[in-house]
Amino acid sequence: MNTAELAELGQQLRVDSVRAAAAAGSGHPTSSMSAADLMAVFLTNHFRYDFDRPDHPGNDRFVLSKGHASPLLYAAYKAAGAIDDAELLTFRTRGSRLEGHPTPRRLPWVETATGSLGQGLPVGAGIALAGKNLDRVGYRVWVLCGDSELAEGSVWEAAEQASYEHLDNLTAIVDVNRLGQRGPTRHGHDLHAYARRFEAFGWHTVEVDGHDVDAIERAYGEAESTIGRPTVILARTLKGKGVASVQDREGLHGKPLPDPEEAIAELGGPRSLRVHVQEPPAARMLHAVGGGGVLELPRWDKGDEGKSGKGVATRDAFGQALVALGTARGDVVALDGEVGDSTKAELFAKEHPDRYFECYIAEQQMVATAVGLAARGWVPYATTFAAFLTRAYDFVRMASISGAGINLVGSHAGVAIGQDGPSQMGLEDLAMMRAVHGSTVLYPCDPNQTAQLVTQMAGLDGVRYLRTSRGEGPVIYGADEEFPIGGSKVLRSSDRDRLTIVAAGVTVHEALAAADALAEHDIAVRVVDLYSVKPVDRLTLRRAAEDTGCLMTVEDHHEEGGLGDAVLDAFLDGRPVPRLVRLAVRTMPGSASPTEQLHAAGIDAESIAAAGRLLVEEAVVR
Amino acid sequence: MNTAELAELGQQLRVDSVRAAAAAGSGHPTSSMSAADLMAVFLTNHFRYDFDRPDHPGNDRFVLSKGHASPLLYAAYKAAGAIDDAELLTFRTRGSRLEGHPTPRRLPWVETATGSLGQGLPVGAGIALAGKNLDRVGYRVWVLCGDSELAEGSVWEAAEQASYEHLDNLTAIVDVNRLGQRGPTRHGHDLHAYARRFEAFGWHTVEVDGHDVDAIERAYGEAESTIGRPTVILARTLKGKGVASVQDREGLHGKPLPDPEEAIAELGGPRSLRVHVQEPPAARMLHAVGGGGVLELPRWDKGDEGKSGKGVATRDAFGQALVALGTARGDVVALDGEVGDSTKAELFAKEHPDRYFECYIAEQQMVATAVGLAARGWVPYATTFAAFLTRAYDFVRMASISGAGINLVGSHAGVAIGQDGPSQMGLEDLAMMRAVHGSTVLYPCDPNQTAQLVTQMAGLDGVRYLRTSRGEGPVIYGADEEFPIGGSKVLRSSDRDRLTIVAAGVTVHEALAAADALAEHDIAVRVVDLYSVKPVDRLTLRRAAEDTGCLMTVEDHHEEGGLGDAVLDAFLDGRPVPRLVRLAVRTMPGSASPTEQLHAAGIDAESIAAAGRLLVEEAVVR
Repeated sequence: MNTAELAELGQQLRVDSVRAAAAAGSGHPTSSMSAADLMAVFLTNHFRYDFDRPDHPGNDRFVLSKGHASPLLYAAYKAAGAIDDAELLTFRTRGSRLEGHPTPRRLPWVETATGSLGQGLPVGAGIALAGKNLDRVGYRVWVLCGDSELAEGSVWEAAEQASYEHLDNLTAIVDVNRLGQRGPTRHGHDLHAYARRFEAFGWHTVEVDGHDVDAIERAYGEAESTIGRPTVILARTLKGKGVASVQDREGLHGKPLPDPEEAIAELGGPRSLRVHVQEPPAARMLHAVGGGGVLELPRWDKGDEGKSGKGVATRDAFGQALVALGTARGDVVALDGEVGDSTKAELFAKEHPDRYFECYIAEQQMVATAVGLAARGWVPYATTFAAFLTRAYDFVRMASISGAGINLVGSHAGVAIGQDGPSQMGLEDLAMMRAVHGSTVLYPCDPNQTAQLVTQMAGLDGVRYLRTSRGEGPVIYGADEEFPIGGSKVLRSSDRDRLTIVAAGVTVHEALAAADALAEHDIAVRVVDLYSVKPVDRLTLRRAAEDTGCLMTVEDHHEEGGLGDAVLDAFLDGRPVPRLVRLAVRTMPGSASPTEQLHAAGIDAESIAAAGRLLVEEAVVR
Repeated sequence: MNTAELAELGQQLRVDSVRAAAAAGSGHPTSSMSAADLMAVFLTNHFRYDFDRPDHPGNDRFVLSKGHASPLLYAAYKAAGAIDDAELLTFRTRGSRLEGHPTPRRLPWVETATGSLGQGLPVGAGIALAGKNLDRVGYRVWVLCGDSELAEGSVWEAAEQASYEHLDNLTAIVDVNRLGQRGPTRHGHDLHAYARRFEAFGWHTVEVDGHDVDAIERAYGEAESTIGRPTVILARTLKGKGVASVQDREGLHGKPLPDPEEAIAELGGPRSLRVHVQEPPAARMLHAVGGGGVLELPRWDKGDEGKSGKGVATRDAFGQALVALGTARGDVVALDGEVGDSTKAELFAKEHPDRYFECYIAEQQMVATAVGLAARGWVPYATTFAAFLTRAYDFVRMASISGAGINLVGSHAGVAIGQDGPSQMGLEDLAMMRAVHGSTVLYPCDPNQTAQLVTQMAGLDGVRYLRTSRGEGPVIYGADEEFPIGGSKVLRSSDRDRLTIVAAGVTVHEALAAADALAEHDIAVRVVDLYSVKPVDRLTLRRAAEDTGCLMTVEDHHEEGGLGDAVLDAFLDGRPVPRLVRLAVRTMPGSASPTEQLHAAGIDAESIAAAGRLLVEEAVVR
């Protein structure tokens, strides 16, 4: 296409954006119109993509970070022949693939769900990292960002990673239309303010008039020819460009145009230009680096006292199991937030350095990278302290909307870590991860159990979370024991049981000791190890409750949203419910030894036994 | 002190750091030793602080962002005479004020809890904003950062805010010791790599040898004399400085020194230098800007149909109530993440512009600013979409460890927002906020109720969360009705009730409609509006369950950790439990109208009535 034709295409994309939003009665046409020329040139001359084969290994990858500009994306799909006009006009209606913000669950051409700003570039950097270091295919990753979202720190985590990793296959296009949702951005049309920042972070920068298609063409060419570092194109644009009544005006974000017919006329009316998007080059995707061996998980003998004499920490078991999994499967990759010596991800780093990505202290970027790697078919395990995964909660939430298959592992669970104090204790992580749609939440107490769960995680759908512990604990399971997801283990059971104690992780060992203590008072207790917190083993819990009449949950987590709440899920079927008691962390811990912490929180064996005795005796009285 | 004395003080701080960690058997002496000279000069010549009066309005504010270097902080307290040597050696033991990471709950001289990296500078910027724009006292805010934590995006959100707000009362001191926890940082000792970034973000930068006390002295002076922008001092240091066996070496993070006695000897042995910290100038703190009026909350009449004919949205009620509260109380301030036209914080911005801070799209910095303002005695309300508060979860978590009194308001709750789709829907927020220690979680369904709750929030301890809705709903309460925290409202009740429906927010209106529908089947239903999700009204719930035998919860939130789990809290006292059913959002929504969304999620009146009928009839059969 020549200059005039490209400009025409830009107008078509504007018209279709206006039409889609008008049909829906909602949406963001003005945010689409500012970027229409950027999109027109990209689609016509630079995007290499087979819409019939979204899984083509050589396809470029496009991420619409400003996800609210979805009308522009869908208008581009129409121009490329991927959808028809009738579908375009289903925008934002129930059952339509064309959601308010695009998601890969519905549309095969979408790489990652956007709509929470400042996430597209982070995930795009993850995809580019896969392209460069794992897939080793020459595709490019293009991310269209808004200017408002550059205020998100996550953008600068991505900027840092992308330059450090020399991601010259990554191009950020920033639609600097100067207006956010509620008013002007901090820097308005000062392109250089943004350029200075990206330059300082090691990027190549290009400043351009975002409505000059020839200048845009040159900018994209410059991005493609820049070696050794990513490029950002900062494009000066006008929100609502092309329609005088809305152009560059405040107060019009996220609203259909007041008079769509007039606006379409002003834009020169509908057009039916069709873009023949370039085919990607033939390519073969690697979906494994090394690997291909037999899975030989580490094994521990029951009663193994480890080096410390106190047993084995589940974080150690995780690290060793991940190494074994990586040896067996070449698609497994690992990431860590600069605490690999604590999470034990460092074991994987030593054994499989080609598949390990150090993310430094940038948890949002770590999770975003995992999402990007998963989008390219890799199986990422991302690790940090459970407490610090809270930093990335919005990314985990969006990963679930993407349907991304990522494994998150949080170490240093609960008060049991001891002296370091509350800032380092994961005490909200179970609640946070359980509330994520479609998630799996696992919490082992034993190294063999940990190894089995680490392996099974890889094959699940959605976000999977494994919680590990800092301190050592006894080995209570054999190496050949199986631990199905959604299952549990009944560790103590008799037909005289008067109480069920449900525990997981460190509290399993406390519960077993409490059961011994209660036995001395002639109170037989059933003990359930609920290693699968979500999905939960309703059948076993229901049966235990019916058999014993009383049920107590014990967790090293705040009382809300964790193990206790998970257990209650078994009793929401409208049938009668047993007597229930929950032990959990109810006070703010300080520094103390692990033993002191468990006692102070009222979740150690002594506390469990005392509460259990009270519950059983009260049940008798009543 | 002269150069030699300052150097001696640096050595004393090192020795005491080594001693404290050795006594504890854990801690971070090497991370303390790198910053000892920076601390010595600061404490002696630049800090203006009255340790006997931590609430002195003129006090400078010091934040140890690298909270793990707590031995250095406590060694400085000792040198200043604030604690004695015996207390220093209680470091990290149970009951000691000297925790692994410092918290203001225990120590009056600590401004904010640290230990999750990348949070000190954001909160420091919030305090500096208070100093400059609200307190209008000439104190300075000094933040000692690690170099590793500059990888956190939150640091750059703070950098952006601090320069934009011209916070020349803020100084960041970065201890560039080149080593993170597990190994070298990305930039090692390349001070200029950091300087370029801060300069691009609008800061004045100084690069310095962090072990040259004269150079440090000059750098601090330069920071104090820089007008119009914040200053960062980038100090080249050596981790473990002064002890050859650990100095600048990897693998020694977070461990006591291998041979403390030898190390102390190498450092020249213990010293007993005492620093006379400068008194702050006399100052009077403003704790109100304007305000002082009578509280005249907005009032709505029952049945008010509003402009839309559909009633009033709780987000609108929030905005109007906050304006009224701000008129009555001059200590109330508001912050928003660039969506004030949606959250309705913009109403406050128009009425009380001096007490409104636009935080742009940087939710972490918004919450950090709120924590900083609260630390200075202000009562902040910070608002964005409920979904986007997930971005700041780690900051909310740390706010609770600080004991900070902040109000968070999340709008656009649940699937009821309609077409925008899942990225914009708060569906995890109740779980997230409930799991925060000491939090209060409120979810109104009516404008008068909203106004009352907004007012009451201001007086509570800890983190308070209010969830508001996008769409309009009927006005069901009178303007003089009271809504105590921890209470609930029984909206329908008879002695024939066979089912209790517990709802909040949008589902209250659906539950009332369902109750009408069930009445036609001669099923009398009790309806409870559980506006206080935490703490929960155990008494009313328990009584309703006992009266009716069946209890159903209905919530516009994922099924984990929200209203349903909150209700179960009433039944964990070991007494028998009623039949329970939970209705919640179990599928991933797409785009659709609000009505379609509620129906698809199975939480509209029709779904509630159907489930209610089933539960009641099953209860009879059994």
